[in-house]
This record gives sequence, C-alpha cells and structure tokens, in this order.
Amino acid sequence: MKSKISKTAVVLLSGGLDSATALYLAKAKGYKCHALIFDYGQRHKQEVICAVKIARASGCAYRILKIGFPWKGSALLDKKINVPGGITQGVPVTYVPARNIIFLSFALSMAEVIKAQAIFIGAHAQDYSGYPDCRPAFFKAFIQMAKAGIAAKNRIKILVPLLNMNKSQIIRLGNKLGVPFSLTRSCYRAGKKPCQKCDSCYYRAKGFKEAGLIDPLVN
Amino acid sequence: MKSKISKTAVVLLSGGLDSATALYLAKAKGYKCHALIFDYGQRHKQEVICAVKIARASGCAYRILKIGFPWKGSALLDKKINVPGGITQGVPVTYVPARNIIFLSFALSMAEVIKAQAIFIGAHAQDYSGYPDCRPAFFKAFIQMAKAGIAAKNRIKILVPLLNMNKSQIIRLGNKLGVPFSLTRSCYRAGKKPCQKCDSCYYRAKGFKEAGLIDPLVN
Repeated sequence: MKSKISKTAVVLLSGGLDSATALYLAKAKGYKCHALIFDYGQRHKQEVICAVKIARASGCAYRILKIGFPWKGSALLDKKINVPGGITQGVPVTYVPARNIIFLSFALSMAEVIKAQAIFIGAHAQDYSGYPDCRPAFFKAFIQMAKAGIAAKNRIKILVPLLNMNKSQIIRLGNKLGVPFSLTRSCYRAGKKPCQKCDSCYYRAKGFKEAGLIDPLVN
Repeated sequence: MKSKISKTAVVLLSGGLDSATALYLAKAKGYKCHALIFDYGQRHKQEVICAVKIARASGCAYRILKIGFPWKGSALLDKKINVPGGITQGVPVTYVPARNIIFLSFALSMAEVIKAQAIFIGAHAQDYSGYPDCRPAFFKAFIQMAKAGIAAKNRIKILVPLLNMNKSQIIRLGNKLGVPFSLTRSCYRAGKKPCQKCDSCYYRAKGFKEAGLIDPLVN
C-alpha cells in the first residue's frame, strides 16, 4: 500500500489567538506542523510559555528560537516606553522594527532545511492599519523576495490565511477548529492577567463580543 | 557655525575581505558606521574575532549579535558535512539557507531604530554564481520588500557596492582604501591558518594574484 503523501509546514506561533488559529488551520488543511516560537526579549514573556502550551495541545512539534533586538526601539522591548491604554493612530509604539521580516526569514531558513512546503503566519487585517509588516503589500513583496533569495524558490508557499479577516471572524474560525483560547494570551503588558486596557486587549474583547462568544481568559 | 550633517550606516561585517572593503568604502563615503557582526554558530568562529579586529581598526562602533540556525542544513553549521576542497558547481554545501535574508533583516531593524540612512553589504559577483541570496535579483527584491515592510520605508538605502566587482577588483579597491587585509579571514574551515583548499581560499588567492598584490595572510 502506498503511504499517504505528507505535507509539512512551519507555523509562526506567538502565543496569541491569531497565530494559534493559523496553526489549527494548517493542521486542518493536512499539514504536519512545526511551530516556530521566538523568545525575542519581549516584555510579555508569558507569550512564549503560552505558545509552548498551544503547540503541545495541538500535538505539533515546536522550536523556541532566542534572538535579540538589542537596539530596542519598541514598547514591547523597552520597559521605559509605556504601553498606552486605548487605541492609537499611526504606527503604534508597540511596533518592533522588521519583526515580521525577521520571523519570516527564519521560517524560510527552517522551511528550506526541513523541506517544508509552506509557512503559515497569522497576521490579519486589523494589524495592518498600524504595522507596516502586516500589510498585504508587504507579504506580496516578501513572497517575491523569498523566491529570488532561497534555493528552494518554488517549493515553499508563504500563507497568510487570516489576512482578510477581522478579529471576530478569526475567533469564530478558531472556535470551529477547536483552538484552546484559554491557553492564548493577547495582552501587551507583563501582568499575570490581561490588562483589559492596551489595544491588543481591546481588540480581543471586541472580537469575542462580536463573535458572540465568551473569552475564557476573562470570564 | 552650522554643524556638518552626518550620515549613519549599518554595515554587515563578517571578517572576510569583502565586507571589510564595504566597511572602509562606507567610511570613505562619509558614513558614520555601525558594524553588525553575527555569531551564528558558524564553524569558522574565528571570523567573528576577525570582524571585531577590523571594526576596531576602522574606528567604527560594532555590535555582535548571537543568533542560531538550529536546523543547520549547511557545511558551515554542521561539522558532519565536509567543506569540499576545490570549486563546486551549483549551490555549494556552504550555502546557509536564508542567511543574507536574515542578516539584512536584522540590519534593517537596527537601521530603523538608530535612524541610519544606509545599510552596506559586501556581496559580489563571484558569490552569486552559487548563492541565491547574493544575486542582483535578490537584492532588488529585498529592497522592494523593505520599502513595503518598515515604517522608515524611504529613508534607508540598501547598498551593495561590490555587486559588480570580482575578487581582484575588490582587493584593489580595499588596498586603496587601506583595508587591513592581515586582519581578514576568508577560509571556510576551522583551522588556525587558511586551508588553501576550500573555494573561498581559492578565490582569495586568485584575486590577490590577479590584483598583483601579496596576501599578508599567506606570505
């Protein structure tokens, strides 16, 4: 009997609910997933622990990569910069210059070596109002660059399946796919419980409300 | 009296003679340079020490960034893979998947935060026969991607000034600029002295010969 052809994917996993949904979606699409988790000096270190719990719950392999942004330049890296309460306009202070570029570049390296067919990243529409490296034009350009810059140029697809969804649509999809929301974490602040004030908490609460679902973290 | 407007550049510095020449060229063009050196688990660890010596000799600031490629996939990362003696065809086993993509991505992050106007990388024509991430098409695509993916999209120029030069032209230029070739290292092997057998040693020897200059490392 012929064995089933298996597909492999590298999934960027942050501990938030978007990337957890991307992981469960990749699994549902039949990919054998390798979660790639970054310990990059973020002030909300708990997200690394959450990402590991999510990867374990999903039954996927995972790898934690420690990297640094010693030049800081973001409220997520520098405790001297305050994470604002409420929604901000323009590029938020939580923007980490080139973070998604770096994360995707490592994913590309890993995907090339482990012979994966795809990379999944859980970026979505609500991010790209502020973060340049979450915009559709960025992903399009990254895909072009990857084709030009690696040896396995046509083998690896870079997939951004949540790109055109808002938070409530992602929560509905995650709910269907069985994402363990209780293990996810969205808050930018380093407290034990979600602050309910930063914009990440705001969008999460709004998303759950619009999806007609209850967030296990706050209820 | 008005103070002179200063330009700042991030220069990727590997310890080899190409990136050392790129550093001295950036300096000659009036940039205040910050060398970015990667300790990435390369078997030829001495190149990090060489890079530091070159940065110090040039009087430039430098930063060593430790990153990992735990999935290996290259003779430069995996001691079980032999570095071949002589020239190979196609993509060499010394190719590190996505290495330049990752290096440039970190340079982009640093350049954005320190408000640099330029990034210099010493890739050149002889590299791109084998390494996908040294080809002109790759750099063109990377520049496009960077414009789409960072907040300081139009401020940072990515410069590849040696791209159309061969090794002997680079050595002549470096010689003019006062590059301390005695501090550089090109060999892929981990020995104390250049092996004179790997393709990196081969091209260095050929370059010095064609430039009519003497390599202080071997004479």
